[in-house]
Amino acid sequence: MKPKIGFVGVGIMGYHMASHLLDAGYEVVAYDVFEEMLKKIVAKGAEGASSCKEVAAKTDLVISMVPDSPDVEKVALGAEGIIEAAREGLIYVDMSTIAPGVAVKVAEELGKKGVRCLDAPVSGGESGAMNAALSIMVGGPEDLFNEVLPVFEIMGKTVTLCGDNGAGQTVKACNQIQVALNFIGMAEAFVLGAKANVDPAIILKVLSGGYAQTRVMDARGPKLIRGEFEPGFKSKFHLKDLNIIMETAKELNVPLPCTAVARQLFNAMIASGRGDLDHSAVINIIEDLAKIEARTSLE
Amino acid sequence: MKPKIGFVGVGIMGYHMASHLLDAGYEVVAYDVFEEMLKKIVAKGAEGASSCKEVAAKTDLVISMVPDSPDVEKVALGAEGIIEAAREGLIYVDMSTIAPGVAVKVAEELGKKGVRCLDAPVSGGESGAMNAALSIMVGGPEDLFNEVLPVFEIMGKTVTLCGDNGAGQTVKACNQIQVALNFIGMAEAFVLGAKANVDPAIILKVLSGGYAQTRVMDARGPKLIRGEFEPGFKSKFHLKDLNIIMETAKELNVPLPCTAVARQLFNAMIASGRGDLDHSAVINIIEDLAKIEARTSLE
Repeated sequence: MKPKIGFVGVGIMGYHMASHLLDAGYEVVAYDVFEEMLKKIVAKGAEGASSCKEVAAKTDLVISMVPDSPDVEKVALGAEGIIEAAREGLIYVDMSTIAPGVAVKVAEELGKKGVRCLDAPVSGGESGAMNAALSIMVGGPEDLFNEVLPVFEIMGKTVTLCGDNGAGQTVKACNQIQVALNFIGMAEAFVLGAKANVDPAIILKVLSGGYAQTRVMDARGPKLIRGEFEPGFKSKFHLKDLNIIMETAKELNVPLPCTAVARQLFNAMIASGRGDLDHSAVINIIEDLAKIEARTSLE
Repeated sequence: MKPKIGFVGVGIMGYHMASHLLDAGYEVVAYDVFEEMLKKIVAKGAEGASSCKEVAAKTDLVISMVPDSPDVEKVALGAEGIIEAAREGLIYVDMSTIAPGVAVKVAEELGKKGVRCLDAPVSGGESGAMNAALSIMVGGPEDLFNEVLPVFEIMGKTVTLCGDNGAGQTVKACNQIQVALNFIGMAEAFVLGAKANVDPAIILKVLSGGYAQTRVMDARGPKLIRGEFEPGFKSKFHLKDLNIIMETAKELNVPLPCTAVARQLFNAMIASGRGDLDHSAVINIIEDLAKIEARTSLE
């Protein structure tokens, strides 16, 4: 029998993910702090609830997709949270990107009440959510992973068990380090090239054809040299992730010299009003510093 | 009629490159400051010379493949250098990786004597040289590029005209920025993951399968998690390139915040006696800082 699924947070990502579950024939009980969002998924066939507690009381498996660590703590452990309807047999899967330490804490606290937990952050952004093509990085017990796998496979294309609770969030953090530095490498390379009057289209062709190739260059390089920075994945969200990463690095005593600089450059994205642009737009910060547009030599 | 080719610098890279020219039926006159090296290419069929001047006097097209900017200045403009045999019709192609500004200066100085010049640095390393699979980035006049193209195609697989004199070196610099930051992203990601007890094989699988993918991760990731750092491309040469890049950035007034940190990390490679390891071994520096081996959790 299909479990009844609760879905907390039906914003840009959550709406698509919950929709796929409805389309697959699951009963979904949804909650969102924004009434607009809730109405949208109810119109699609979900039952609306008025709190996380109510969602948890009415379902077997609660999924959350909310902005940040404090939101997850509130959903899971706060007043009117899942913990107030906690019971043996309930499953909680947080798919937000949050601090690994918070994922571990939530799993421990809910675990005391018999709730079994997974952290399962995703990559792939809105288009991944819309096309059920997300990459899902899961932390938690293997038997629980196997139990929830059919549900993950409705929302994502690649689902990987990464280790114990928190490991999904850790691998997501690793992913975001690499993506940030790939973009900054592209940014610094293109700005240096522009200052030396080299056509960025040539730089893109040579770099993407060789050892310097990155998937973000393949995906965003052509847009970048046309000055197109519509998201994709917004800079303010990548800054959030970098903040989580550096906070985690502090807890674990891991010096991350380049990631630390990356965070400052993404901080400058927000300071200059570019938080809603794609993360590839970090090149704008290097351009500002160098007082040049890296695309000026392109015709 | 095939031009007679001079080859200055027949070390690890130059030996293979000159060999391909000999195999293709070109007459080659070679010179190297190390007599051992010269003997090796003479044994292969080249004529040995005792100076760059002599090489230039006896040939139509001189190629050089030497370590750094001062070496190229010496080869081209120094005592017993090409300039002492400079004449209308002579072509000089420097394939070393040097400062774009020095490439421009050499082209200007030799240009005054009627010598036409290209800068044509390569990527692909020793295996690229051995297999005639180098990527060649060329700066200089288009007609000269087309004239020399058949010679380039004997040594390389991808040959790209990047712009005027110096543009080949600029694009090589861009390439080395991106490669360095791709490696450092991988290093910081894997060390963070290791400190959080996540199996590096899982991190590699997830990152290389998604938006974080880089060609250096595909090529060196599996070796990295086995602790294998045989070069490939030696760290000390990547440091040389990063020094060129930051010197060029200073001349052009381009702030490169992450590349600047990258240089310091590669500097630490030399300080810790790791200059002869592959550049992927920059992870050892982050491991040293964090007092952990990023591979300890792998079984």
